Amino acid sequence: MPIVTIRAFEGRTVEQKRKLAKDITDVVMKNFEVEADRVLIHFFDMPKHNVAKAGKLFIDQ
Amino acid sequence: MPIVTIRAFEGRTVEQKRKLAKDITDVVMKNFEVEADRVLIHFFDMPKHNVAKAGKLFIDQ
Amino acid sequence: MPIVTIRAFEGRTVEQKRKLAKDITDVVMKNFEVEADRVLIHFFDMPKHNVAKAGKLFIDQ
Amino acid sequence: MPIVTIRAFEGRTVEQKRKLAKDITDVVMKNFEVEADRVLIHFFDMPKHNVAKAGKLFIDQ
Amino acid sequence: MPIVTIRAFEGRTVEQKRKLAKDITDVVMKNFEVEADRVLIHFFDMPKHNVAKAGKLFIDQ
Amino acid sequence: MPIVTIRAFEGRTVEQKRKLAKDITDVVMKNFEVEADRVLIHFFDMPKHNVAKAGKLFIDQ
Repeated sequence: MPIVTIRAFEGRTVEQKRKLAKDITDVVMKNFEVEADRVLIHFFDMPKHNVAKAGKLFIDQ
Repeated sequence: MPIVTIRAFEGRTVEQKRKLAKDITDVVMKNFEVEADRVLIHFFDMPKHNVAKAGKLFIDQ
Repeated sequence: MPIVTIRAFEGRTVEQKRKLAKDITDVVMKNFEVEADRVLIHFFDMPKHNVAKAGKLFIDQ
Repeated sequence: MPIVTIRAFEGRTVEQKRKLAKDITDVVMKNFEVEADRVLIHFFDMPKHNVAKAGKLFIDQ
Repeated sequence: MPIVTIRAFEGRTVEQKRKLAKDITDVVMKNFEVEADRVLIHFFDMPKHNVAKAGKLFIDQ
Repeated sequence: MPIVTIRAFEGRTVEQKRKLAKDITDVVMKNFEVEADRVLIHFFDMPKHNVAKAGKLFIDQ
């Protein structure tokens, strides 16, 4: 704890996730006053045919 | 907001998701009185070897 | 299965949830061809101080 | 209900999930006093490039 | 990792959760071959007006 | 999208969440190249009797 879960469209590179994981960990540590090894991060890669906004899948927008 | 997440067995077509996303958005708008572009929908496709009921995976039922 | 999870701002009445649960079940049954008792719905009531958009909590927007 | 969701690194075999699903169902039934067919279990297989601890992806640890 | 999330109706005692947390940790360790301190468990207490099956809230069943 | 969900022990102040929401939004925008209003953040406040590690609830650790 804390556990941070990020659902974002698939297509981000491992390097983008590597940097974001580092940055999120830093800001969680700073603001919630926890040690680094308490921060867990999970990415879920969402395909555009599995996400909708305003009633439309993103493949149709 | 609202965020609607649907976990269902994999195998549904994009067309099925397209129609369900539209229908869910409509009923959320009607009952919760929100505008269309506030409704986000996420589908998670679950393989049958990753879901169990009554102690048995669905591939074994 | 399917499991439908809805995160929405707290404040909706039980009657609103009752009707939305009925309507979502109907459209899931129709589009995903499942029987009624397979559809589970979970509501999570989110306080406005626990949701942010564009970097701002909703109590500040 | 109850719904049990397990996020673990990918690579576990179907046999491992089969046994864990059985065991978790047993202990949920015993401790929460529910019948077997009320216990649903969902596994999510997490790739090591999608999980971070202490600011580092597991592919880098 | 693994992270185990349990959504169950509210009303279970702390003692019930204490025992279930112990038992689930044991079976996860045994079947997935992980050490105890890798197993995290989160309980979410669901009120009956926030869960529906077959289109009906549990307060109406 | 992206949707960021943070499960942390209850007790953080609104001010801590306000600042963390701002900081997370900034690092998601920078690393995933999205606009601010695409970033949604949800906090879940976890009581210590609802979280376990190594088979023990946090109220017992």
